[in-house]
Amino acid sequence: MQDQDAAALLCDLARSFYELGWVSGTGGGICIRDGDRVVIAPSGVQKERMRPEQMFTLARDGSILCRPSDASLQPSECTALFLKAINLRGAGAVIHSHSMHAMLATLLFQREFAISHMEMIKGIAGMGYHDRLVVPIIDNTARECDLAESLEEAILNYPAAHAVLVRRHGVYIWGADAMEAKKHAECYDYLFHAAAEMRRMGIPTSMEGDIDDASLSVRRAVTRDRA
Amino acid sequence: MQDQDAAALLCDLARSFYELGWVSGTGGGICIRDGDRVVIAPSGVQKERMRPEQMFTLARDGSILCRPSDASLQPSECTALFLKAINLRGAGAVIHSHSMHAMLATLLFQREFAISHMEMIKGIAGMGYHDRLVVPIIDNTARECDLAESLEEAILNYPAAHAVLVRRHGVYIWGADAMEAKKHAECYDYLFHAAAEMRRMGIPTSMEGDIDDASLSVRRAVTRDRA
Amino acid sequence: MQDQDAAALLCDLARSFYELGWVSGTGGGICIRDGDRVVIAPSGVQKERMRPEQMFTLARDGSILCRPSDASLQPSECTALFLKAINLRGAGAVIHSHSMHAMLATLLFQREFAISHMEMIKGIAGMGYHDRLVVPIIDNTARECDLAESLEEAILNYPAAHAVLVRRHGVYIWGADAMEAKKHAECYDYLFHAAAEMRRMGIPTSMEGDIDDASLSVRRAVTRDRA
Amino acid sequence: MQDQDAAALLCDLARSFYELGWVSGTGGGICIRDGDRVVIAPSGVQKERMRPEQMFTLARDGSILCRPSDASLQPSECTALFLKAINLRGAGAVIHSHSMHAMLATLLFQREFAISHMEMIKGIAGMGYHDRLVVPIIDNTARECDLAESLEEAILNYPAAHAVLVRRHGVYIWGADAMEAKKHAECYDYLFHAAAEMRRMGIPTSMEGDIDDASLSVRRAVTRDRA
Repeated sequence: MQDQDAAALLCDLARSFYELGWVSGTGGGICIRDGDRVVIAPSGVQKERMRPEQMFTLARDGSILCRPSDASLQPSECTALFLKAINLRGAGAVIHSHSMHAMLATLLFQREFAISHMEMIKGIAGMGYHDRLVVPIIDNTARECDLAESLEEAILNYPAAHAVLVRRHGVYIWGADAMEAKKHAECYDYLFHAAAEMRRMGIPTSMEGDIDDASLSVRRAVTRDRA
Repeated sequence: MQDQDAAALLCDLARSFYELGWVSGTGGGICIRDGDRVVIAPSGVQKERMRPEQMFTLARDGSILCRPSDASLQPSECTALFLKAINLRGAGAVIHSHSMHAMLATLLFQREFAISHMEMIKGIAGMGYHDRLVVPIIDNTARECDLAESLEEAILNYPAAHAVLVRRHGVYIWGADAMEAKKHAECYDYLFHAAAEMRRMGIPTSMEGDIDDASLSVRRAVTRDRA
Repeated sequence: MQDQDAAALLCDLARSFYELGWVSGTGGGICIRDGDRVVIAPSGVQKERMRPEQMFTLARDGSILCRPSDASLQPSECTALFLKAINLRGAGAVIHSHSMHAMLATLLFQREFAISHMEMIKGIAGMGYHDRLVVPIIDNTARECDLAESLEEAILNYPAAHAVLVRRHGVYIWGADAMEAKKHAECYDYLFHAAAEMRRMGIPTSMEGDIDDASLSVRRAVTRDRA
Repeated sequence: MQDQDAAALLCDLARSFYELGWVSGTGGGICIRDGDRVVIAPSGVQKERMRPEQMFTLARDGSILCRPSDASLQPSECTALFLKAINLRGAGAVIHSHSMHAMLATLLFQREFAISHMEMIKGIAGMGYHDRLVVPIIDNTARECDLAESLEEAILNYPAAHAVLVRRHGVYIWGADAMEAKKHAECYDYLFHAAAEMRRMGIPTSMEGDIDDASLSVRRAVTRDRA
């Protein structure tokens, strides 16, 4: 895949993610890697209105190989985080989503999102229907780049995960290429959504029960405070 | 209808179903039959990005009559299940949806989804407003093809149904042709959604009461466990 | 407006209403009147896939002035109901929607939907922000055409309303022309949605309180039955 | 930016806002300023169907510099309110949204909407992740133009806010230019939505607790009335 093909695909996917509510308010983002070249969006732009000629091409160490002619543009603030998934896991594409379902999952679970016995789990590489799918949750930081260290730790500690949730923020999701990353993003998002609906119905999200139920302890604390 | 017309319609419907959230993450699918030829999508592809030249044509026994030039493609894993509805019920098209509403219906009901006194029931062939619409629910299996036996049993046991729900998974829906299958899919999905909203309001979904309310027993068990 | 312009507008609006979820499963519909000619869709077709040449033109008494060349088509089953709003209220267009919000409103309220102190009330002709907007609810019947009598009664009894809700079914909404009918439909739908959210939060939908709260009495009955 | 470019952008954004549900039923609106010229939509038109040649150009004092050839059109009723944000805060664009999330936020909070520790807060100019984002809420009036005084007061009293909520109505949001106003509108809308979901889960929306929780007091009053 040439840089310009990756850039066109990136803009196309970003438009689609905007329609899903994942990258509104200039938030969220995506990068696509081809070999040692990583095509990445600029920082702070409306994701559904990007054009291929605004994209950057980076090396895997983050150095800029190719920049857009508009000198006011800077590479996405997600760059350091995207490169973690690329360099630690060989990701061919990384999606950063501010999906409401992902954000709410970080309020419903404390350290790990967990769900089992859902067909959509099979959409995640290496996972089967009966497996307990786990996504680590890291705490948010004031600046996006300050997430790099804890993201790296989570990636290393959860080798079966293809995603890391960020508390009160969103999620980073990757795959072997753009199509797998998109597939993973859609499956994880479905599962975050399903988990919230199940919690609302009082149904445990995994067969071992909801050991790590953040909302319960928060709710208890709140109830105590108000009593 | 020629194979290429069926293939074009199939891709068009798949895009529309993706926008409805029924076939995200490469999940779900659709096939269209014309006489003894069944046009069917390949396995594991993004359903909203399929092109007509990627489709397979099968005989009613599942043997491949025509395959796409891309040799890496395989027929959808739903094939055996689609053929059940075609051969047992004469379906002209079958839709497999991972709709959140369908999936949640399998958590709210135990063995059968049931609803009565809803206008949208009239959209299902053979049903009237006052009828009690029933959809059997079968348990999910680790592999899609392992559903074939219980799907067949459900189809035979529920001759008035044009759909079978699969627990924690989704639903198979069929009709005499593509337009009826689509109409059925839209009506069933509306009814699954309506039932969840009614449960939330404490309103019975059918006039005989909610005898088969899975969530109540699950919730009771959970409450017991936590008490 | 010529018949063909009305037909094109009708198909365009129907596509838009499908995207809003108002006319799925071939349900719902729309007609547009110009003088004494009423352009109306055929029965049982996918509303988002209609073409202008499939439309009928009727006189105000329902007699067919012009029919599509496809002889298998019949005028919409809503025809008698559409003509009530046209002949009793001079409507220039009538929209029949199966919107989930409209349907659920008929479960939350018994004889009348009522809401006050909402900006969107101002979108309904003749209504101001402080007014109590009321929409009558009639019971559904097995056949659409059997609604005609109770619809007429409701239209006559509620001269300030531009809509009639049909229990467990949907809503009929009209306006002086197609654009006003569309505006009314969007405003009423917003208000049905808002009312459900307010009920969920325990906030009265009109300042005089929720005297006519169907769900409360249903819930009480259900609780009694289960106790 | 020439008037015609601003008019084209305005129509384009209005279509997009309609799809988000912010400007249905002819409600809501947008204006874009270039220097001392303010391009603004006409009153009472379907926002997603506007054409650039229907736009007005006003001076910053509201006088009409340029009007559409269709003499039946009048400038938006939001004009006086849009000019407040322009003249008091130097806004380059103002968006008025009837978003359900914004409207519901005015029922969940009494005098101020407040949220903290959410990534999307960073999308609002001058705000960081740890900041407590506050949006003042003013009471609605029978006529849109009667909001001008209380809107001005709220704008002056809340210099860090880029939005003012209007009870049971919606929200006014602005930015330095059209793209910042759009970014602000998307971020605020996300935060209104998130706050409602958090309330539903019993999670405080800001770390100092929900001191100003309108729904609690309303619910208490309602419960008292019914007891």
